[in-house]
Amino acid sequence: MDVEEQARPVRGFRFAGVSAGLKAVFGKEDLGLIVAEQAVAAAGVFTTNQVKAAPVMLAEERLRAGRLRAVVANSGSANCFTGKAGMKLALDSCAAVAKEISCPPESVAPCSTGVIGHLYDLGKYRAGVRMAAASLSSDGLGSFARAIMTTDTVPKLASTTLRFAGADVTLAGVAKGAGMIAPRMATMLAFIVTDANLTPAFIRRALLGALPESFNAVTIDGDMSTNDSLLMLASGAAGHRRPSARELTGLEHAVAAIAGSLARQLVFDGEGATRLVAIEVRGARSSADAAKIARQIANSPLVKTAFFGCDPNVGRIVAAAGAAGVDLEPHRLGLAIGGVKVADRGMILTQALAAAAAAMGRREFTVRLDLRLGKAGANVVTSDLSLEYVRINAEYMT
Amino acid sequence: MDVEEQARPVRGFRFAGVSAGLKAVFGKEDLGLIVAEQAVAAAGVFTTNQVKAAPVMLAEERLRAGRLRAVVANSGSANCFTGKAGMKLALDSCAAVAKEISCPPESVAPCSTGVIGHLYDLGKYRAGVRMAAASLSSDGLGSFARAIMTTDTVPKLASTTLRFAGADVTLAGVAKGAGMIAPRMATMLAFIVTDANLTPAFIRRALLGALPESFNAVTIDGDMSTNDSLLMLASGAAGHRRPSARELTGLEHAVAAIAGSLARQLVFDGEGATRLVAIEVRGARSSADAAKIARQIANSPLVKTAFFGCDPNVGRIVAAAGAAGVDLEPHRLGLAIGGVKVADRGMILTQALAAAAAAMGRREFTVRLDLRLGKAGANVVTSDLSLEYVRINAEYMT
Repeated sequence: MDVEEQARPVRGFRFAGVSAGLKAVFGKEDLGLIVAEQAVAAAGVFTTNQVKAAPVMLAEERLRAGRLRAVVANSGSANCFTGKAGMKLALDSCAAVAKEISCPPESVAPCSTGVIGHLYDLGKYRAGVRMAAASLSSDGLGSFARAIMTTDTVPKLASTTLRFAGADVTLAGVAKGAGMIAPRMATMLAFIVTDANLTPAFIRRALLGALPESFNAVTIDGDMSTNDSLLMLASGAAGHRRPSARELTGLEHAVAAIAGSLARQLVFDGEGATRLVAIEVRGARSSADAAKIARQIANSPLVKTAFFGCDPNVGRIVAAAGAAGVDLEPHRLGLAIGGVKVADRGMILTQALAAAAAAMGRREFTVRLDLRLGKAGANVVTSDLSLEYVRINAEYMT
Repeated sequence: MDVEEQARPVRGFRFAGVSAGLKAVFGKEDLGLIVAEQAVAAAGVFTTNQVKAAPVMLAEERLRAGRLRAVVANSGSANCFTGKAGMKLALDSCAAVAKEISCPPESVAPCSTGVIGHLYDLGKYRAGVRMAAASLSSDGLGSFARAIMTTDTVPKLASTTLRFAGADVTLAGVAKGAGMIAPRMATMLAFIVTDANLTPAFIRRALLGALPESFNAVTIDGDMSTNDSLLMLASGAAGHRRPSARELTGLEHAVAAIAGSLARQLVFDGEGATRLVAIEVRGARSSADAAKIARQIANSPLVKTAFFGCDPNVGRIVAAAGAAGVDLEPHRLGLAIGGVKVADRGMILTQALAAAAAAMGRREFTVRLDLRLGKAGANVVTSDLSLEYVRINAEYMT
């Protein structure tokens, strides 16, 4: 699948991103709109955190109908842990959009990201919505992507075009990440739009199918957000014939490819991240065992600081593996870092460590742990834990 | 219970700490001995990590007999993930001690801490054991405490004397911590000696009783060590009469007080720690629920960096609570930081945040989360996540 890390127009949708003054930093884009020409098929998956933001609860409820006309997203405030006032604010925000684009408020889904426990200014928000509605354009997805950034340093964009049921169909996605990234659900905010003609049930299945290898397979700090939302809308404007089962499978793969690209971009731009590390666990008795171990390694502060220091620290990696609550036989363990075998049958290969340290100097490398107990495996992509991560998070405003 | 953070002599034991050259830094103490006048009652609890160090496996086996003559501990190398060569090294190390103090090797328990995957030099170790045996003294517990330090900046010592079954009985303990500290078992190395006359079964019960509120209630980085060992030896040299059940309970409390003091000292000297934070979860449906939430908060990198930044970040704390896998009702949540109520019934009390930030300037403060769902609670003590933590762990040698 040929996925480009950039936006492209998707028939049936217009986008905008404007500065509404919701962020503390003046002039930054902080309010984004996605508007379909008419109500279109849509589905979403959301955080499993028990403390859910008001916009998450509202978007989840509105997606039960399977159709949306618009998505409105803001940064600067997560509108979470804000009680009844927060829910009223989310409702009023959608109503402002509905008024501008002339649709029922129930056809608008809200998403928010930023500081928890903070209510944004509804007056500024409404003025922003008016500006955004006036600047909607088929080329506006890049602006939308910038409007949902918080501590992200670059917007995350992914797009592809494929032949589908006799027509050229486009998928385009955007995401924001940076912190509170953990592999338990659709991570942070991500939006995918397509001009294919799809049912809400199919979209939902495609999203759930894409998760395990994309947003659920990345971790930056093991913290789970209160606002995680992944939404997908399909306009049907491509005008293709009825797809075959095989063609639908192809489209599911395209959704997974877009999600996978966005998820990788999240880790690359993780807070303070200087390395992208793919943790590959092999030879487990079950894939659940393998995933537990991969996550324990991927979230260990000692392992992640060693990544930052280009230190091929076998001990920390096997100690994290041993702490995952999975039965291991340490004398069987094999480990390779950056393709260099550094441990075999429970012993460190000391002479290989210099080569492994050199391999860790690259922006991206793999850590492959072989348990030699069975045939199952799992992958998790993580970042390192850098001085900059601490600086960002010790100084980020309340 | 009046526990002092210093050593005191305990009848029936002598101690030593010497520099055997096992640490990379020249001249630092790195080998310690505890020797009883004769074989005495002893018990221990050990790491639950699946990757166990050779000395842990050997000490665990030898404690089955319930009696020990000596404990030998070294820093500089954990002798873990070292295969059969590591087990031979642990056996040879105990044999060297046995030869010096004329006892069977089975009466010697080994403990190691330091770099994983590294075998120390047996020749240097033997020379160190000779030096240590020659310098044994009833005042040597402080030297022993320094010999087991790795990235610790200060030795951890705790002692108390109490009236027990008609005699004055002393307990003294030492510990080393600093990193790989997580609340799943006796954390890192800790040793307690007493001149009370106790059975191995009682000692074991006292240790297990002390754990939940001491070593199992602290966390620094959520990483679990491969070498965690907590050993206790009782010489019986105090010469008291047979204790009553009530007196034994008093002694259990004394063991818990020593363990609790050592555990707090571990967190205060956690790698890079600038704050000691007691996480108190109240109003849970069960203490297991409360402990899950307390640990999720205590191990969240985002929460810990906020502690470092003196940022009363309610959002990160409630988001961590919501991610613990426990059913919550967010609109009931109340939160106090440093005694300042910052959230009530699911809303942030914005006007209180400045006072909370000021309270976080102290070296030690509490975070109290009230779930208002039931009557159970749990406490976990944690540190902050500082720039220095990353510096230490990105630079610590492989």
